Amino acid sequence: MEQFKKIILTEKEMPGQWYNIAADMPNKPMPPLHPGTKKPVCEEDLHAIFPPEIARQELSTERYIDIPDEVTNLYHTFRPSPLFRAVNLEKALGTKSKIYYKYEGGNYSGSHKANTAIAQAYYNKKDGVRRITTETGAGQWGSAMSFACNHFGLELLVFMVKVSYNQKPGRKLLMNTYNADVIPSPSTLTAAGRKILEADPDSPGSLGIAISEAIEIAVQDPYTKYSLGSVLNHVSLHQTIIGEEALIQMEKAGDYPDVVIGCFGGGSNFSGITFPFIREVIKKNRKTRFLAIEPSSCPKLTKGIFTYDFGDEAGMTPLLPMFTLGHSFIPDKIHAGGLRYHGAGVLVSQLLKDGFIEAKSKMQRECMAGATLFARTEGILPAPESSYAIAGALDEARLADIEGVSKTILFNLTGHGHFDISAYEKYFANNLPDHELSAAEVEKALAKINPIDCR
Amino acid sequence: MEQFKKIILTEKEMPGQWYNIAADMPNKPMPPLHPGTKKPVCEEDLHAIFPPEIARQELSTERYIDIPDEVTNLYHTFRPSPLFRAVNLEKALGTKSKIYYKYEGGNYSGSHKANTAIAQAYYNKKDGVRRITTETGAGQWGSAMSFACNHFGLELLVFMVKVSYNQKPGRKLLMNTYNADVIPSPSTLTAAGRKILEADPDSPGSLGIAISEAIEIAVQDPYTKYSLGSVLNHVSLHQTIIGEEALIQMEKAGDYPDVVIGCFGGGSNFSGITFPFIREVIKKNRKTRFLAIEPSSCPKLTKGIFTYDFGDEAGMTPLLPMFTLGHSFIPDKIHAGGLRYHGAGVLVSQLLKDGFIEAKSKMQRECMAGATLFARTEGILPAPESSYAIAGALDEARLADIEGVSKTILFNLTGHGHFDISAYEKYFANNLPDHELSAAEVEKALAKINPIDCR
Repeated sequence: MEQFKKIILTEKEMPGQWYNIAADMPNKPMPPLHPGTKKPVCEEDLHAIFPPEIARQELSTERYIDIPDEVTNLYHTFRPSPLFRAVNLEKALGTKSKIYYKYEGGNYSGSHKANTAIAQAYYNKKDGVRRITTETGAGQWGSAMSFACNHFGLELLVFMVKVSYNQKPGRKLLMNTYNADVIPSPSTLTAAGRKILEADPDSPGSLGIAISEAIEIAVQDPYTKYSLGSVLNHVSLHQTIIGEEALIQMEKAGDYPDVVIGCFGGGSNFSGITFPFIREVIKKNRKTRFLAIEPSSCPKLTKGIFTYDFGDEAGMTPLLPMFTLGHSFIPDKIHAGGLRYHGAGVLVSQLLKDGFIEAKSKMQRECMAGATLFARTEGILPAPESSYAIAGALDEARLADIEGVSKTILFNLTGHGHFDISAYEKYFANNLPDHELSAAEVEKALAKINPIDCR
Repeated sequence: MEQFKKIILTEKEMPGQWYNIAADMPNKPMPPLHPGTKKPVCEEDLHAIFPPEIARQELSTERYIDIPDEVTNLYHTFRPSPLFRAVNLEKALGTKSKIYYKYEGGNYSGSHKANTAIAQAYYNKKDGVRRITTETGAGQWGSAMSFACNHFGLELLVFMVKVSYNQKPGRKLLMNTYNADVIPSPSTLTAAGRKILEADPDSPGSLGIAISEAIEIAVQDPYTKYSLGSVLNHVSLHQTIIGEEALIQMEKAGDYPDVVIGCFGGGSNFSGITFPFIREVIKKNRKTRFLAIEPSSCPKLTKGIFTYDFGDEAGMTPLLPMFTLGHSFIPDKIHAGGLRYHGAGVLVSQLLKDGFIEAKSKMQRECMAGATLFARTEGILPAPESSYAIAGALDEARLADIEGVSKTILFNLTGHGHFDISAYEKYFANNLPDHELSAAEVEKALAKINPIDCR
């Protein structure tokens, strides 16, 4: 009686390189533009906020980039991460399909964010940086960065989106335990924050605002750099370790995914699990679908437009070619704080535009129902963000059953929900609102964008 | 530059049997006595609250007991668990000693309690039981049992010690997510609970009271059985998987512990990590010390007496030969709720009496300081219970340095503290009281015991 199936790899089997999909994309991503000159940025332009190696990786078209030994060593405390076959979930559904999930919550930070936090902290330390500023939504990224910075001897200042700061005090305390300073955003520490608070003293904040605040502090001091947990190419690069491992593990399981699913905020975990499988489509003509699941209240992929836009609220980042709802869009206070972002990463946006990936939006109550079923059958309590990927996987399994076929479904379980238990409390109390952004709301948001021609 | 060292085992390397130390103890444990007749209980006596296989294991003197396939299958979702060399903690201490820890928090329940929960739920299901009642302190045991019962199709009713119910709402919600009913104890559901509430409506509760309530419900219905998360022999038995794995892992590390350390509540995790190493002392004359760390506010091992006493407040369990502060002792409201128990398990008590193990008590603030240092260096956020083992390990390392020697120290990191973050909050705010039970308090507690001659 086989009830569970876990596919593990040894440390020696862990891939030694990250995969850069830019090398293989038929249409290369368009370059970021300088926010002032509107001309393509070069590596040097990025040195104002990033150390040289991060700037290099951001614009690189090299196919593979070596993972440094110091990063590998910390990865080995929790990597390779396990791949599970969700046998009990399948039974509960009564599906003919096979559901696999890659679990990225089994590390100190409880989410996939550690994969890039460790790399970014390392490169900053190597470059002589002393302090890092960053933003965080629900707190996974902030927690990941806190321990990584403390490990490499860097100070960290985190701007935490205010709604999450209030919803999730545990995450703030975890960051404090790891020695970081945490400020609710919008704050009065920065001009960007003060401007928002003047217009709306009760602003719940957004990732876009928190990014503006973090960058504003970083550019004032040559020994302080900024660090971003999603969206950018180097972040997606570091996350590809997820998909590279999953490829080997699916092979060990004697299976191959018909569809690969990830939840979608800025795109980092989605890129991480899908890019190596997309490479197999491009280079080896494999047939796999890729499905990004975003919140109905923040539907940049399904209702946004593809245009150059800022990554932050105040317009301090380079202009990025992305699917966006506009950098001033402030999403609903959903519990999946990590998905409350107006835009999609550059690589993912181009791939969506070119038809390599699909996107779908879902409501939070349905996602929490899926997360509860998952917890009861598979044991792991999913983060609210991860619940979107689960809901996407359940949809695929049910659709396959209706069609009378069996699919092999792989999704990324980005993290655990131990610090998000209040979301479950509200779900059980039937106290979790649903909101699908209406056509009028979409129109209003998009009208604020000042589009630049994107071919 | 090696910063971390993780020693993992494959599923095939996981031992297939639990180890029963009763087979090898020079002085066998004295038998439990029937609470009514005061005569030694036999297996049949235990059938009122336990299924036959559990009753058999409780009184067994077989050296090894096979782990059933169904249990192994669920174990494999998180076992073998990793053993880490705490290189960064060693560096922070500047110690010459080597510190290893076995991490038992990487499963759905976040603690070692899953090891016995899965076995107990399985044996109950196999015997046709429909519902289980149990107690829980901080909630680790209750969480472990909730998922295990749901997995095997059993209902679960959990009496959660009221102080923890209020301190740790997250644990209650986790149990609900896993489909269990959770009642704060003392409750009005039982005569035992009502009696306590009449005497003290504000009673914080204790594990002893919660056990009485759970047993009272169980004995009323032939399809309901009771399940205990610590103290008893079969619980210690199931936990020996920890030490059996650690033995193999220490060998792989090319090392062997001079001292093995565990925190101490009722003794289950301590038994689990130490018993296989104590076997090596008894059978192979290995030289290892064994150190139990208990809270200064609940010092049964260091200040209690060895006598027959009840396992619960109301006197419904068999009388057990144990180190105890008396079954009516209500410990301070420390955050390590899992250590708030008046007595020590039978096997551990006999081994302490016979000089195989040592015990030491510590204050919670010192333990939380150790836990914070551990989190900052090793990444994992320890449960307040586990912080006692950490503090014990730090003491051993510092003492060794004073003596100018290098020791190999192994401790059991029983679980993560994700649901106990309020303990860290209070520690950081300098709002965590310390209390060492005074001689007068000890005398008062012990005076209530009606001792039975224990040789």
